[in-house]
Amino acid sequence: MESIGRRRWAIAEGYIPPDSSYDSRALLSHEAACILNAGDADANIEITLFVTDRDPVGPYKVQVGARRTLHLRFNDLEDPEPVPRGTDYASVFESDVPIVIQHTRLDSRKAELALLSTVAFSAG
Amino acid sequence: MESIGRRRWAIAEGYIPPDSSYDSRALLSHEAACILNAGDADANIEITLFVTDRDPVGPYKVQVGARRTLHLRFNDLEDPEPVPRGTDYASVFESDVPIVIQHTRLDSRKAELALLSTVAFSAG
Amino acid sequence: MESIGRRRWAIAEGYIPPDSSYDSRALLSHEAACILNAGDADANIEITLFVTDRDPVGPYKVQVGARRTLHLRFNDLEDPEPVPRGTDYASVFESDVPIVIQHTRLDSRKAELALLSTVAFSAG
Amino acid sequence: MESIGRRRWAIAEGYIPPDSSYDSRALLSHEAACILNAGDADANIEITLFVTDRDPVGPYKVQVGARRTLHLRFNDLEDPEPVPRGTDYASVFESDVPIVIQHTRLDSRKAELALLSTVAFSAG
Repeated sequence: MESIGRRRWAIAEGYIPPDSSYDSRALLSHEAACILNAGDADANIEITLFVTDRDPVGPYKVQVGARRTLHLRFNDLEDPEPVPRGTDYASVFESDVPIVIQHTRLDSRKAELALLSTVAFSAG
Repeated sequence: MESIGRRRWAIAEGYIPPDSSYDSRALLSHEAACILNAGDADANIEITLFVTDRDPVGPYKVQVGARRTLHLRFNDLEDPEPVPRGTDYASVFESDVPIVIQHTRLDSRKAELALLSTVAFSAG
Repeated sequence: MESIGRRRWAIAEGYIPPDSSYDSRALLSHEAACILNAGDADANIEITLFVTDRDPVGPYKVQVGARRTLHLRFNDLEDPEPVPRGTDYASVFESDVPIVIQHTRLDSRKAELALLSTVAFSAG
Repeated sequence: MESIGRRRWAIAEGYIPPDSSYDSRALLSHEAACILNAGDADANIEITLFVTDRDPVGPYKVQVGARRTLHLRFNDLEDPEPVPRGTDYASVFESDVPIVIQHTRLDSRKAELALLSTVAFSAG
């Protein structure tokens, strides 16, 4: 399929709730960047995290295969360092091929779920 | 009315919760693509689903009449195959006339409802 | 202030939950189009509603003063006819000056609140 | 990093719930503008608030350092005057360098959380 999307994306909102009411991976509080690579070439993506009081951290490197989607949880990023819980951050994604990014959070600090989602801001 | 929208749309986030706390169609956990065809010609739409570990599935074919809206539930797609529950996916919509697509999920895995919604990413 | 926005907007998703757990206006299940007119001229807006199985309804006429915001509840639209509850619809807004529209729903069918919001799709 | 974003943003939806079920800052009902300044120059931002029945209020002045993010709570704005609770408003952000803005609300009027988020409308 013809590729769709942009090479550069920003998510200004980032916050991984420090607590969860559940142990299962599906219901654990988490924040995700849902990445779609609809094109015929693998996407090599570098992520930079911005915080409030020190220099940015990164790049985190992620690959999404051709014609695949990856629902990346920020909770799972470990290298160069884990994403702190309960802390405000923002992120920029730079890919070598066009991709589409949607931002989602599931918050299970309380027993009932809360959800948010928005398409990220794209440029370039 | 003059048509409004684009011909090509992507929803990078897709996930149909595997459980529901209710049996009624209105409160069943579901994921929807709300499609608006404001123009004077019927829209013939092909949907391709992307997953994490195998080639895309599709096309699913949907028609939305002139000057009509369709709130399509991914739960209802059956041909060429049902959309798996509890699995990450993404989708691309290709229409022969301009349309507008908004993505919504109602999650009733717990007794209280959680909602998300965002306008899909448009191109072309 | 210099005006900001577009003249033509679409909200593909529309659904007023038929029930509420509360009587107060603030917590009643409702769907809103939050309209910002940051410019120096009043905005005259015509809204057309699209449904699944018959011709569009409208125009509904709304005015938003210069340098004002209006959080319009679809629940409050009465002329030419009320918006049906528990029914899928979509909407197109046409203004004579640039405006910004954001779509929000508060769902209180269950005792706890669910919220969604997204900037509408803009064109022209 | 190369800057990303726009200089002018609007959030048409604004409402700080008047009540909260919790005292902790994290779970207090609040509305936030998450601002990302990925570029190499500090961002000087002026915010104007629009309401339904009187002239706009502002500017509120905020600075976001180079390569930093700020998750600004409207609850915290005090000068020239606090943002009223339980009242509809909208906002326009004007920056001297490109930034990205995402809008989020946490509503804890009831014991369980409700969340919404969307990328703001950008222009210029």
